[in-house]
Amino acid sequence: MIALFTDFGLHGPYTGQMKAVFHQMAPDVPVVDLFADAPAGNPKASAYLLAAYAAWFPAGTVFLCVVDPGVGGERPPLIVEADGRWYVGPGNGLFELVQRRAGTLRRWDVTWQPERLSASFHGRDLFAPVAAMLARGDAPPGRTRTDASDRRSDWPDDLAEIVYIDHYGNAMTGLRAAALPAGSGLAASSRTLERARTFSDLPVGTAFWYENSNGLVEFAVNQGRADRALGLSVGSSVSIVA
Amino acid sequence: MIALFTDFGLHGPYTGQMKAVFHQMAPDVPVVDLFADAPAGNPKASAYLLAAYAAWFPAGTVFLCVVDPGVGGERPPLIVEADGRWYVGPGNGLFELVQRRAGTLRRWDVTWQPERLSASFHGRDLFAPVAAMLARGDAPPGRTRTDASDRRSDWPDDLAEIVYIDHYGNAMTGLRAAALPAGSGLAASSRTLERARTFSDLPVGTAFWYENSNGLVEFAVNQGRADRALGLSVGSSVSIVA
Amino acid sequence: MIALFTDFGLHGPYTGQMKAVFHQMAPDVPVVDLFADAPAGNPKASAYLLAAYAAWFPAGTVFLCVVDPGVGGERPPLIVEADGRWYVGPGNGLFELVQRRAGTLRRWDVTWQPERLSASFHGRDLFAPVAAMLARGDAPPGRTRTDASDRRSDWPDDLAEIVYIDHYGNAMTGLRAAALPAGSGLAASSRTLERARTFSDLPVGTAFWYENSNGLVEFAVNQGRADRALGLSVGSSVSIVA
Repeated sequence: MIALFTDFGLHGPYTGQMKAVFHQMAPDVPVVDLFADAPAGNPKASAYLLAAYAAWFPAGTVFLCVVDPGVGGERPPLIVEADGRWYVGPGNGLFELVQRRAGTLRRWDVTWQPERLSASFHGRDLFAPVAAMLARGDAPPGRTRTDASDRRSDWPDDLAEIVYIDHYGNAMTGLRAAALPAGSGLAASSRTLERARTFSDLPVGTAFWYENSNGLVEFAVNQGRADRALGLSVGSSVSIVA
Repeated sequence: MIALFTDFGLHGPYTGQMKAVFHQMAPDVPVVDLFADAPAGNPKASAYLLAAYAAWFPAGTVFLCVVDPGVGGERPPLIVEADGRWYVGPGNGLFELVQRRAGTLRRWDVTWQPERLSASFHGRDLFAPVAAMLARGDAPPGRTRTDASDRRSDWPDDLAEIVYIDHYGNAMTGLRAAALPAGSGLAASSRTLERARTFSDLPVGTAFWYENSNGLVEFAVNQGRADRALGLSVGSSVSIVA
Repeated sequence: MIALFTDFGLHGPYTGQMKAVFHQMAPDVPVVDLFADAPAGNPKASAYLLAAYAAWFPAGTVFLCVVDPGVGGERPPLIVEADGRWYVGPGNGLFELVQRRAGTLRRWDVTWQPERLSASFHGRDLFAPVAAMLARGDAPPGRTRTDASDRRSDWPDDLAEIVYIDHYGNAMTGLRAAALPAGSGLAASSRTLERARTFSDLPVGTAFWYENSNGLVEFAVNQGRADRALGLSVGSSVSIVA
């Protein structure tokens, strides 16, 4: 299975062209759209989101990841194998948390080159073919990487920021709920919110936080929009209240 | 074939994770996105939309339906077979019209339990696996249902409200055109509109109603947006003018 | 492979119903969403976008193209084979540039009729079945076309207008970069912009134009939105500055 994690949007021609590459190079491999609206141009917030959601997928999944504001510039194209899952994309920090949390880890610089590489769409021309090769079982088309310039040792283990707002207005953070001290409250927009198990445990209109279905701390309002109620957007800071 | 009917949006990780379940459990079954923007948190409006659109699909189709504002709460998880089509989702009224209009009907309470059930995403953890089992030909993983607590006998046979606004601004109602008296006008936002066959039969800019391609009464404006022209949104009332 | 080029949006039931037709009639053929947000109701702008993007796909691809403000009216349903690629859709100019730029060209009027043709959704009832037939290798279900009423000889070879705004705010024109004199500037919204190779070659916030990954002239701002910075929307005129 190939899973797409990009900031391309589903509309427009970008995701479709990458899928056309997969259909030609790895026709029997199913493809799922995981995120097409990862934090735009923001590899840091994306890195926390990716690590939380990739962990749910089975070993062998190939994640094609493109949040790449520097396309055409100097960041290296990477292949990472972490806990049996494969990741292909730009070496701009996007894989930092996946790597940091991995039990087993291997890394390659992509050395394969397409016949024609556009300046602006490496997702289609470089990363998608490499993902297709991995998904059909080819050896990684690269050279073992020793350079750590893509690592971001200064980023925290958990990110106390909003990293995603979903269709319902729920606001996900880069914090893993399991990493919080028991009984923690969370403050967002100068309000302290209590933890609940899920939506239906609270009166309609109540704001709370809960552990979402992929383990992240998420702000929500029962039958309402937490982003509007709490004034949250991607990048908003939150803080842990002991 | 599995058809998805949800209020999840196509963006974000929800639909992709359900498709990942299908690829693992029922890899040869095609999946189509029917609605990812069913009326959010509104099982009643969704029920009329689902009944109209499901009727177009062939027998054997499995509809995975998640419009579930009470996720984590008390509504029962159901399997319904109506006229040879299968429906999986919450027993909150979402299947009321499908059941009421069915020639043949069987019902089960889902008894299968996943190893791990998140509190907030039964679509992925419970309903998608059950839909995959049905789609690959397994017997319904449940117990014949006799309880009628999911039925909504007080809901009308046709709903005189807007249940969906499409990409063009066309406004669908929960009324079946075939159920209207011949020559009926329809009033929306204190204007009475006449029936037309299709867009190109009328001058540009004219508002009208017509029987849409799935049999519902729909308000439209030739090369314009009916939602803006008539001030309509999901939940707006309409009335039949004899 | 079938590629979808429509103005339907991905949300709502339209694309899903066409895919359900493909799954039933051509179950082994992969389908990709190329554009679901082609210029709405605008076959002219769409024609330049389609010609640029279709050229990237391999011979044998079937493009199902529905930008059809006259659905239900008099425009003829067409099949076009141009340079080994197939196109199915309304004869309203949508295929003008594909045909004009083709080395080899064959044309048919669709003569196949569905059992039931809705007045408003020929994409599902007529065009999708015809595309499925072509994709599975059937002979074109039509009659060789000699009528040129669908041709638009008065349209230019390249269109100096914005034809698409993408998710990032980049603004594509209907101009092929290769057709511009060397050293051309381009004026949009009374500003003249210089050419760059790609985003990362310029300071953050700088507006420029470049040849996009499918050969079109595109306005962009490094880590910004060109549509807002330059006040551009679909239909905005641009001009070449020698």
